[in-house]
Amino acid sequence: MNEQRRSGRQARAAERSRKGGGIGRPYIQRGIPTYDVLSEENLIRIERAADRILAETGIEFRDDPVALDHWRRAGAQVDDLRVRFEPGMLREILRTAPAEFTQHARNPAKSVQIGGRNVVFAPAYGSPFVMDLDQGRRFGTMEDFRNFIKLAQSSPNLHHSGGTICEPTDVPVNKRHLDMVMAHIELSDRPFMGSVTAEERSEDSIEMCRLLFGTEFVDRNCVILGNVNVNSPLVWDGTMTRSLRAYARANQAAVVVPFILGGAMGPVTNAGGIAQSLAETMAGCALTQLERPGAPVIFGNFLSSMAMRSGSPTFGTPEPAIGSMVIGQLARRLNLPLRCSGNFTTSKLPDAQAMTEGTMSMLAAVHCGANFILHAAGFLDGLLSMSYEKFMLDDDLCGALHAYLDGVKIDDDQLAVDAFAEVGPGNHFFGCSHTMAHYETAFWDSGLADNEPFEKWEAAGSEDAATRANRAWKLRLAEYEAPPLDEGLRDGLRDFVARRKAEVADAWY
Amino acid sequence: MNEQRRSGRQARAAERSRKGGGIGRPYIQRGIPTYDVLSEENLIRIERAADRILAETGIEFRDDPVALDHWRRAGAQVDDLRVRFEPGMLREILRTAPAEFTQHARNPAKSVQIGGRNVVFAPAYGSPFVMDLDQGRRFGTMEDFRNFIKLAQSSPNLHHSGGTICEPTDVPVNKRHLDMVMAHIELSDRPFMGSVTAEERSEDSIEMCRLLFGTEFVDRNCVILGNVNVNSPLVWDGTMTRSLRAYARANQAAVVVPFILGGAMGPVTNAGGIAQSLAETMAGCALTQLERPGAPVIFGNFLSSMAMRSGSPTFGTPEPAIGSMVIGQLARRLNLPLRCSGNFTTSKLPDAQAMTEGTMSMLAAVHCGANFILHAAGFLDGLLSMSYEKFMLDDDLCGALHAYLDGVKIDDDQLAVDAFAEVGPGNHFFGCSHTMAHYETAFWDSGLADNEPFEKWEAAGSEDAATRANRAWKLRLAEYEAPPLDEGLRDGLRDFVARRKAEVADAWY
Repeated sequence: MNEQRRSGRQARAAERSRKGGGIGRPYIQRGIPTYDVLSEENLIRIERAADRILAETGIEFRDDPVALDHWRRAGAQVDDLRVRFEPGMLREILRTAPAEFTQHARNPAKSVQIGGRNVVFAPAYGSPFVMDLDQGRRFGTMEDFRNFIKLAQSSPNLHHSGGTICEPTDVPVNKRHLDMVMAHIELSDRPFMGSVTAEERSEDSIEMCRLLFGTEFVDRNCVILGNVNVNSPLVWDGTMTRSLRAYARANQAAVVVPFILGGAMGPVTNAGGIAQSLAETMAGCALTQLERPGAPVIFGNFLSSMAMRSGSPTFGTPEPAIGSMVIGQLARRLNLPLRCSGNFTTSKLPDAQAMTEGTMSMLAAVHCGANFILHAAGFLDGLLSMSYEKFMLDDDLCGALHAYLDGVKIDDDQLAVDAFAEVGPGNHFFGCSHTMAHYETAFWDSGLADNEPFEKWEAAGSEDAATRANRAWKLRLAEYEAPPLDEGLRDGLRDFVARRKAEVADAWY
Repeated sequence: MNEQRRSGRQARAAERSRKGGGIGRPYIQRGIPTYDVLSEENLIRIERAADRILAETGIEFRDDPVALDHWRRAGAQVDDLRVRFEPGMLREILRTAPAEFTQHARNPAKSVQIGGRNVVFAPAYGSPFVMDLDQGRRFGTMEDFRNFIKLAQSSPNLHHSGGTICEPTDVPVNKRHLDMVMAHIELSDRPFMGSVTAEERSEDSIEMCRLLFGTEFVDRNCVILGNVNVNSPLVWDGTMTRSLRAYARANQAAVVVPFILGGAMGPVTNAGGIAQSLAETMAGCALTQLERPGAPVIFGNFLSSMAMRSGSPTFGTPEPAIGSMVIGQLARRLNLPLRCSGNFTTSKLPDAQAMTEGTMSMLAAVHCGANFILHAAGFLDGLLSMSYEKFMLDDDLCGALHAYLDGVKIDDDQLAVDAFAEVGPGNHFFGCSHTMAHYETAFWDSGLADNEPFEKWEAAGSEDAATRANRAWKLRLAEYEAPPLDEGLRDGLRDFVARRKAEVADAWY
């Protein structure tokens, strides 16, 4: 890399760290309160509805006898696979879960604090396809997966490397978790997520962390998250509970997430979906505490709605957005860290629909008090595609949200009363001493928005935001530099991956 | 119009009125609280800063001796054009202003309630240019102006006809207000706004309302709004205060709005801009009460920021969005109805940037408790262009916000506990009795978003949202029907317009 490019990059990096409400921080500490929309009385009514669902209908735990044993020992009523819970029982079990914890990164400066007033942005998770403006939609590959880690690692606006950013479909299903965790470790020095698609893959993910951080450190500290889903309504599959228990057993944090598409996996009413979400999530979170009391766990939220005419899922619609505020209130009453989903959309392109729906859901996530916001960047087509351009557009919105979450600072200097006396009526503030003292840190500065006069924009080619985003991800990839990693650690990890891969035949489904 | 088209339209209208959280209502009564981000202690600090600005620097009132006389009589300190106010004086004067009032429409079913928990959406206001995907950008004409009134009138998501939706630049500057008010009256039966660009144009606008509603009715009821701007910082121009007084004198509502571009017309710090906004708006609102105690008046908010590198204005950025929450808290402490601006952007196209910025600012407007949201639809390019496609995209977002502002309803039926017993773990809710009872009113249903599977979307032409919006505005215009208007009233108004136009020569600047 020549010196000119390097100094250009350094200048931009310096500018980024200077501008925009402290972007470049390892995570955000919110300066504004959460947006609480429901009265305590109504929250209690939801909690009672969840208690009734848990006591009367209960939850089915499939293919995991250990989970059923846990529930029996805890005093739940277990009939075959169906488990019913006395009101208050799960809340009592959840009292051992921490309200806040640190997820350590291999670079200590990038460790994140999850819970309390803290907010962590992570890329989207789980798409089989990737998409860009040049090549359109195609199945994701390991190269795409690595590209998105690089884009996240180089982002001043994200805090976390995420997990299965896209499915690397060119690697066998039973081995790709090894390559994914290895890529997170090698290409990023931020915290990341492991596999959950089988118990042994969860254990492999955690074992690689033991090689990286040391066995004792991992036993005492959270270094990896595993995102496990309820099979809504009211079913926990063994694949998920075994992985959930693997993470908890290792003192690592499970993220417990129902996927409730209102009208399909839950009622068409928002209140009903919220009560269900509370019931399902409490059960999953409580199971972590039965596996290992005190293990960190994150209360997850994934409300979504359905287009009633077609039966298609919808994302970024108003009912789940406002429902998320209620989920936030309920999670805080449980004293658990909260996960929400960010830039949701069903749009197939990084267009107006994508960012209307994305911005509505992302703002809901930050307003409701989410501590860990998954899907904060890249999400298109109802999570079927990871988009390079949408990633950059969302990333830019994440930058804006740093300034937004800082809130309005009030002190004499910020109130600037003396500046009015200096400037006087009818004059401008461009050169006044207050402006000169503050302009370097004033106002978040988008890297993608066009604020130029129309004529200048037209002369430069009349580009839309997606076209600018296309250029931006290519530039960011070209300028990416891998964070340093100890060679001995790296080689040990590579050996582990090679050994584990050699132990079994490839499986492609 | 043939029967087939009519019945298609009626079916769609019926569907609209059935779906989506009660869209089609004359205005919204919010079911969620406002988002209050600042403590009372910090609000008081802002109020004290505003009081100091008003007492120490004061405000200049230019070219309006009557305004200066009002201030002298009220006890303010008047030195030449500069007026200084004792702390608390403006608050005391403002006690006569109503906290809430009705703006009457010529169709009583469309009258809106402004203040309290009510929210009214109005189109964007004041662009010299219009834009669509077919013809690009061009100066607005009377035909465009009429088109946008038709689009707003036919919208189930907007509540108000607005004012100068775009400048009809093919009509002389000194006569276009007559054609604009006439168009609002003829083409819409919703409430609207009059001219403010000169005192006699304000009076013409109000006089036309007297012909429409009757002189006595107008003297006792609000039937027209006039949006007047501060010449920030700290200057009120006579053109504006004379118009403001004309509206107040006729018992009509002035909307009092500073335009503070942080770093140019105000400090670069958010707190300073908010204190300035409070000072300037209180002064303008108080002047209405000196002109006519008890006249309705709306507290306006138009914070925006600047791209510090280029000096360009920016819209839809995070600092003004979060600052608006504070303005909302301050307006409620004054017990005045609040105006905010909606779908702001500097983008030149109805693209991802437009809707990221637009959604952020529109959500800020509804969260902060704004009662009258101007610029809710159509705004592009920093208010220089009114966009046909953006209008439809914003309109769709306004529809979503009806469902959003309804909040989460909590009762036994909504909580659906019995549905879980009926459906049981692992089954779907598609056909259960709770779903059947609710599916017709469940979930807001976007008219523009694409929720189809990728393959179906691709087979239909891979359209982006702007392309769908292009088709939608043409369809809406084609299906527009004028609301009935008494011929005698119409002819009387037309005579008035013709007479006033004949009285003076055309002026083009």
